[in-house]
Amino acid sequence: MIRFESDYTQGAVPEILEALIKTNMEQTPGYGEDKYCLSAADKIRKELKCDSAAVHFLVGGTQTNFTFIASCLRPHEGVISASTGHINVHETGAVEATGHKILPIESFDGKIKAEDIEAMVVAHENDASFEHITKPKMVYISMPTENGTIYSKAELEAIYEVCKKKNLILYIDGARLGYAMMCKENDVAFSDLPNLCDAFYIGGTKVGALFGEALVIVNEKYKEDFRYIEKQKGAMLAKGRLLGLQFDTLFTDGLYFKVSAHAMKLADRIRAALREKGIRVYYNSPTNQLFPMLTDEQMNKLKNDFSFCYWCKNGDLHVVRFCTSWATQEGDVDTLIDAINAL
Amino acid sequence: MIRFESDYTQGAVPEILEALIKTNMEQTPGYGEDKYCLSAADKIRKELKCDSAAVHFLVGGTQTNFTFIASCLRPHEGVISASTGHINVHETGAVEATGHKILPIESFDGKIKAEDIEAMVVAHENDASFEHITKPKMVYISMPTENGTIYSKAELEAIYEVCKKKNLILYIDGARLGYAMMCKENDVAFSDLPNLCDAFYIGGTKVGALFGEALVIVNEKYKEDFRYIEKQKGAMLAKGRLLGLQFDTLFTDGLYFKVSAHAMKLADRIRAALREKGIRVYYNSPTNQLFPMLTDEQMNKLKNDFSFCYWCKNGDLHVVRFCTSWATQEGDVDTLIDAINAL
Amino acid sequence: MIRFESDYTQGAVPEILEALIKTNMEQTPGYGEDKYCLSAADKIRKELKCDSAAVHFLVGGTQTNFTFIASCLRPHEGVISASTGHINVHETGAVEATGHKILPIESFDGKIKAEDIEAMVVAHENDASFEHITKPKMVYISMPTENGTIYSKAELEAIYEVCKKKNLILYIDGARLGYAMMCKENDVAFSDLPNLCDAFYIGGTKVGALFGEALVIVNEKYKEDFRYIEKQKGAMLAKGRLLGLQFDTLFTDGLYFKVSAHAMKLADRIRAALREKGIRVYYNSPTNQLFPMLTDEQMNKLKNDFSFCYWCKNGDLHVVRFCTSWATQEGDVDTLIDAINAL
Amino acid sequence: MIRFESDYTQGAVPEILEALIKTNMEQTPGYGEDKYCLSAADKIRKELKCDSAAVHFLVGGTQTNFTFIASCLRPHEGVISASTGHINVHETGAVEATGHKILPIESFDGKIKAEDIEAMVVAHENDASFEHITKPKMVYISMPTENGTIYSKAELEAIYEVCKKKNLILYIDGARLGYAMMCKENDVAFSDLPNLCDAFYIGGTKVGALFGEALVIVNEKYKEDFRYIEKQKGAMLAKGRLLGLQFDTLFTDGLYFKVSAHAMKLADRIRAALREKGIRVYYNSPTNQLFPMLTDEQMNKLKNDFSFCYWCKNGDLHVVRFCTSWATQEGDVDTLIDAINAL
Repeated sequence: MIRFESDYTQGAVPEILEALIKTNMEQTPGYGEDKYCLSAADKIRKELKCDSAAVHFLVGGTQTNFTFIASCLRPHEGVISASTGHINVHETGAVEATGHKILPIESFDGKIKAEDIEAMVVAHENDASFEHITKPKMVYISMPTENGTIYSKAELEAIYEVCKKKNLILYIDGARLGYAMMCKENDVAFSDLPNLCDAFYIGGTKVGALFGEALVIVNEKYKEDFRYIEKQKGAMLAKGRLLGLQFDTLFTDGLYFKVSAHAMKLADRIRAALREKGIRVYYNSPTNQLFPMLTDEQMNKLKNDFSFCYWCKNGDLHVVRFCTSWATQEGDVDTLIDAINAL
Repeated sequence: MIRFESDYTQGAVPEILEALIKTNMEQTPGYGEDKYCLSAADKIRKELKCDSAAVHFLVGGTQTNFTFIASCLRPHEGVISASTGHINVHETGAVEATGHKILPIESFDGKIKAEDIEAMVVAHENDASFEHITKPKMVYISMPTENGTIYSKAELEAIYEVCKKKNLILYIDGARLGYAMMCKENDVAFSDLPNLCDAFYIGGTKVGALFGEALVIVNEKYKEDFRYIEKQKGAMLAKGRLLGLQFDTLFTDGLYFKVSAHAMKLADRIRAALREKGIRVYYNSPTNQLFPMLTDEQMNKLKNDFSFCYWCKNGDLHVVRFCTSWATQEGDVDTLIDAINAL
Repeated sequence: MIRFESDYTQGAVPEILEALIKTNMEQTPGYGEDKYCLSAADKIRKELKCDSAAVHFLVGGTQTNFTFIASCLRPHEGVISASTGHINVHETGAVEATGHKILPIESFDGKIKAEDIEAMVVAHENDASFEHITKPKMVYISMPTENGTIYSKAELEAIYEVCKKKNLILYIDGARLGYAMMCKENDVAFSDLPNLCDAFYIGGTKVGALFGEALVIVNEKYKEDFRYIEKQKGAMLAKGRLLGLQFDTLFTDGLYFKVSAHAMKLADRIRAALREKGIRVYYNSPTNQLFPMLTDEQMNKLKNDFSFCYWCKNGDLHVVRFCTSWATQEGDVDTLIDAINAL
Repeated sequence: MIRFESDYTQGAVPEILEALIKTNMEQTPGYGEDKYCLSAADKIRKELKCDSAAVHFLVGGTQTNFTFIASCLRPHEGVISASTGHINVHETGAVEATGHKILPIESFDGKIKAEDIEAMVVAHENDASFEHITKPKMVYISMPTENGTIYSKAELEAIYEVCKKKNLILYIDGARLGYAMMCKENDVAFSDLPNLCDAFYIGGTKVGALFGEALVIVNEKYKEDFRYIEKQKGAMLAKGRLLGLQFDTLFTDGLYFKVSAHAMKLADRIRAALREKGIRVYYNSPTNQLFPMLTDEQMNKLKNDFSFCYWCKNGDLHVVRFCTSWATQEGDVDTLIDAINAL
């Protein structure tokens, strides 16, 4: 069984394991105040060309999302998100558990538009009962989205402009950020990100690390006391060095981007194979997640040798998800492509 | 200016004021343990033909909703509601502030269907990632709905059946319950209610009282320790007797139903006038809220003498809301009908 | 049975009932935006000599406390309170239910000292693990305290100075504020209050109203969006006029202070009687709550004709609480004093 | 600088790193449903002689505490803890952030007594205002405590008996459980634990793992739906296998206990050296944390070569904390003992 069901089925890039082994018996202070965390944060700031960014290392994505959101919002404030956004559908109500309503904007492909955000805020402002309605205060988007799609630079600029105009915080979930960055269709540079939002996170779990996400807070207003809240939410790892080490490794010599490019190359090959076979996709994802629509027969054939995610039904067809990752083996992709060709 | 914008513009039925005056200098224990609360609860149980119901008196509707919901649910459990449900749109995220996600079912007229509830639960059960998704555990409906519509007895039976089958709690918001009960199209008897849900509340604020809602918990499982949570949520009035007195008055000689019938009679007259004038309504509400669709000219003419709620635009027409209540004056309705006729 | 167990056993001053009757069928907008709320807020601001204060009317004390606290604090911030503070011991964890820890300072008589507050903050600042500890951000005190004691002006000034120095919000619970103001030992003028704290509330429930508390927010920083949170916490009464009317009445011609003075005069008489009888008190309360320490025999004798609160045991003696209020009858106090004399 | 400040300054036992390397490129399902988690849970159950225990792997201690507590309690219920308990003083209000009050019992050495727990519950039951007070529902203790002390089997039995009698959940924080188990004074067998409480956790972070805690839920009542809440609180690691692998390694051939015994042996040596030197300790800790009381001069001398925790002042003396761990080097202890001898 070759697994394509997700991009977190395997451990970490070998460089990370080596770093763990090499430093294992070093003694460091805890809670993210060791030299590896400092070094990793510096490297990330340098790569982002943003000296003033605050960088915090957390363990997982759900945790990073609700910790940052809870840190920023007052009780009556809510988060605008695509209806398909991870916080809205796959975090067991983690944001609501911190007291905040999510304000969904209907989305098919995972993206939302600047004008829809503005319209929601304007509707709120114009409602005579505005005080009876959750106040939109943050916008949550993902890059790439949960459906594999990406925002163009122009789209992000438009969204951030609305946010600044309407006093909204823009936060980008980058669980798979590396794959967006290395996508051929992407026109957003990594160092553009600090100019395009108030905060975002660089996903490690799905991009080469054992675990870990690097939260980057750009806007001064949302930096204060973050570590208190990180601790409160169980997001401050005792041996914080483990996170520092991993991100230090990933941001040495561009490793984060190299391993992302690997996944993208393999995803592109599968994408091409599907296209050639005439198998259509449900979302127009240019990144490492692919959403082919299969017939009963096609799905059953592939099931024998490959694991993948069942997404939804679309008419007679089954939408499924295949993921590549930093860890995907060239040979496994060859086998999959052969199987696709043979369908 | 004659106000038809809501059903809580005025004080209380005179009998309530008289009771307040008469008992003003009596000394009673606090927090709902006085003889008036006991008597009111007894009268309500008798009217409901349900000796075992627990009856609690709270101050307002939003408060009653989030207090009961928070009392029942574990952190990962959510509430199914019509997208238009009061808890979803007009309580400033009060339910989320207690930690629980609302799971909306799209609705135009405020009602949801048994089959849509079941489909949502089945989808949850069948989702491989079910533990990553808020678990549906309660169903919130309103009778009448926020759009004035009502459920038939058969519809409520079907919903409750699904709830029992799927282990969901059914809770009915009865902010305007009296108006539903006295509606000509209604086939649900007041004493049917304990058999049709796990808990509901009998609205006082909009139906003759100065303020106050009577929460009726039928299902034994949700009775335990409710008073602790009532206190925690600021919902336990120090001079609880004020609530007891009001409900005792309203449930003496059927006063609650009489004043509701008054509102319904006047609403029906306005409804007839609109129909005769050829003015169509947006929601097919048979209760005390009316949603005519007016032209610019019609709206502007009526604005001069009457206050009403602006609801939304529908094509070129303006959907507005007129409410009658226990307090509406026959003469004011005459004046409104004349104005409608003159449009 | 004559009740001295609390100061909320009766209705309201007759002037309030008259106002309710007189305005009962007037139509007003809801949610605290009617003319009576506006007028009451103006009168309070005038009495406080503070034009810029924001005044909000809420229903009860627990509600006012947690609503204001939740409105001000970020998730990692806590409230310093006397260990005996109402929020710490008698609100079923209402503040914690909004997510915030209470940081108690041990207190016998209900008061806390400026130096203890400062010491707690300094200890926090100096703790190497400060980010692992709830950050003190607000100070909650009561005037009078739950034990009937009062702060002198100098004490309040010292506390507020520490608060400003250490960036703490000072909030005063004035559930019985009128009784403190009219206490012979009090040297704090009502119009001093806006200069002595960031926010406080003027208790109505225990001082002449049917129910209701007037929250006064002095510090500009804590005014923004309060009404949203008021709505979210179920604290925004639909018929807000009921609160406006009551406070408008109480703040017309100094009625609030007159009725408070009445309670104080009667409390002083009972206090004198206890002293003459040689019955000592547990707390040195100069306000409307008295805490005599009774022998078994004394307690049992008084029990026959009077209700009072059992507080605690102190050696062989029973500490009990007697309260007077705006509603206490001169004749009932005569009867009680006779009974004390006869012990 | 040799670090004795905590027991989490280093990585993991080599066997864990080897297991990570060996399995790095294996593909497994995520979220704790892989074969390593299953195997680790089985080994733990076997070691505990408790086939029915539910075993969940979480990332850190604070997280495990608030996730389990939030999973069990209704909104009005609180947790009894020693005043010194980790949840009460070093988790930035994490438990309160889930809505629950902590009910502290004053403690000097970190332990609480069965009779104090019972007294608190009885006081609650007997209080006329019990519904206005947080209801004690859970007891949180630590083994060993934050002050290094341990409970005897008889003490734990007495506590659990009170818990069962008073319907309280008993939960044991075992962040350093291995060190308690291997302590010479300990009379509690590892396999006794399931009979002595409703749930507990086996600390990995401080006892040989890179990170990770194994929560063991014994009582059937608290097992349901735990994984939902684990996900909601950010405690469900995407690559759950990392936790499974670590605990599988630690519970193979008693490795967990062996590495614990190593730390204890070294702690005992330091303890003996302090005793011989006439340096007294603040808490009578028989485990891996030592709390010597040093003079200015002694502290300053040791500071040059060793890092340790500053705890508090006691008269003229400084209470500090030294920890050993699974990773402490024999040679470093020799150096420390020489330094102690030379004081």
